[in-house]
Amino acid sequence: MAEKPYVNYQSCQAGVPGSKKGVVGIRFSLAPMCDDFITIILDAISKVDLSKVWAKTDATSTVYRGRESAVFDASKACFHHAYRKDVHMMFEMTISKGCPGDVDADYALEFSDEKVNAAAIEAIHFPVLCKFALYPMGETNYMHVIEKVVNEAVDRGIFHGTGHYTSFLKGDSHAVLDYLEWVANRVGEEISHYIIEATILCNLPEEDI
Amino acid sequence: MAEKPYVNYQSCQAGVPGSKKGVVGIRFSLAPMCDDFITIILDAISKVDLSKVWAKTDATSTVYRGRESAVFDASKACFHHAYRKDVHMMFEMTISKGCPGDVDADYALEFSDEKVNAAAIEAIHFPVLCKFALYPMGETNYMHVIEKVVNEAVDRGIFHGTGHYTSFLKGDSHAVLDYLEWVANRVGEEISHYIIEATILCNLPEEDI
Repeated sequence: MAEKPYVNYQSCQAGVPGSKKGVVGIRFSLAPMCDDFITIILDAISKVDLSKVWAKTDATSTVYRGRESAVFDASKACFHHAYRKDVHMMFEMTISKGCPGDVDADYALEFSDEKVNAAAIEAIHFPVLCKFALYPMGETNYMHVIEKVVNEAVDRGIFHGTGHYTSFLKGDSHAVLDYLEWVANRVGEEISHYIIEATILCNLPEEDI
Repeated sequence: MAEKPYVNYQSCQAGVPGSKKGVVGIRFSLAPMCDDFITIILDAISKVDLSKVWAKTDATSTVYRGRESAVFDASKACFHHAYRKDVHMMFEMTISKGCPGDVDADYALEFSDEKVNAAAIEAIHFPVLCKFALYPMGETNYMHVIEKVVNEAVDRGIFHGTGHYTSFLKGDSHAVLDYLEWVANRVGEEISHYIIEATILCNLPEEDI
């Protein structure tokens, strides 16, 4: 009888990242709400220059790992390449750094941090609505960290109110993604392990954003 | 000049839920990947019996708040009512309890916890693939809590491996949702504030699940 594949995280310690190299990862799923979703997703994924990140796509999502600037560059590019005028789309992303269960494997850090995908998407801009939440782990003072981060969105003019379990952002697609990169960078300096969950929507049928 | 709408979480304390009444909430987004997504979403939302939960739908998502059993009953019903044979769909959900920033408002707890939606969906079953993560907040021992939870999925026969930042589940739609409800219940007994993020997919084009 096959042994059950139990996981074991007994050696994990809060405040001690499993990766000692500061690997940042983004796992995302694209959901273009149209009959042609397969073409849109595969086309977007294929257009991303992956020379600066480690990448893996499975049946649920795609993950990029490497330098913070590189994984944001690649993820932002994938989302923008998937944009179609008039196609409602959901882009769901998990941004994470410092998990005690992480490992020093599956990453690309040996490169410079130039944003190799930026030029290809600089002309693509569209309005988005976003819900996001920040989870600073292993900390008792986490609500204060969240407060600082949300108030930066206020200062940038993209804060769109709060709801149960979430804060809303509204603005240009680049402005929202650049803010999330700022959050990762700012929180990564202070917190050993954080997760940011963001769901970004474009071409909403409900309202003119 | 209008005052900037800064948030203030200074009075929040880790380990002290903002809601003293044990309100559980689920915020979810449906993404049917077909041209007819609006009809499918609105139809599903309208079919849910909301008599046991507080509910609000905004442009990004829907949130139900109330007793744990009631919010799972309503969310599970909405997902199953949105199911269409041959339509690939993503159901993204945030399950949360005990946030120090929560409030004793916007809930329905005064009812018995019978699952009023269960009968309407008991005949609807379909295979799903799910990625999920559990975030126990304000705790240093959180990896051990996660380990226990993941190993319950192994025992239930729905564990489908781990990936960076996530664990995978695979099985019948009811089995996966019922497991997530078990996780919420189990973790809610031990942890003051937790979040579960789950993304559930059906009718995947990539593989025969």
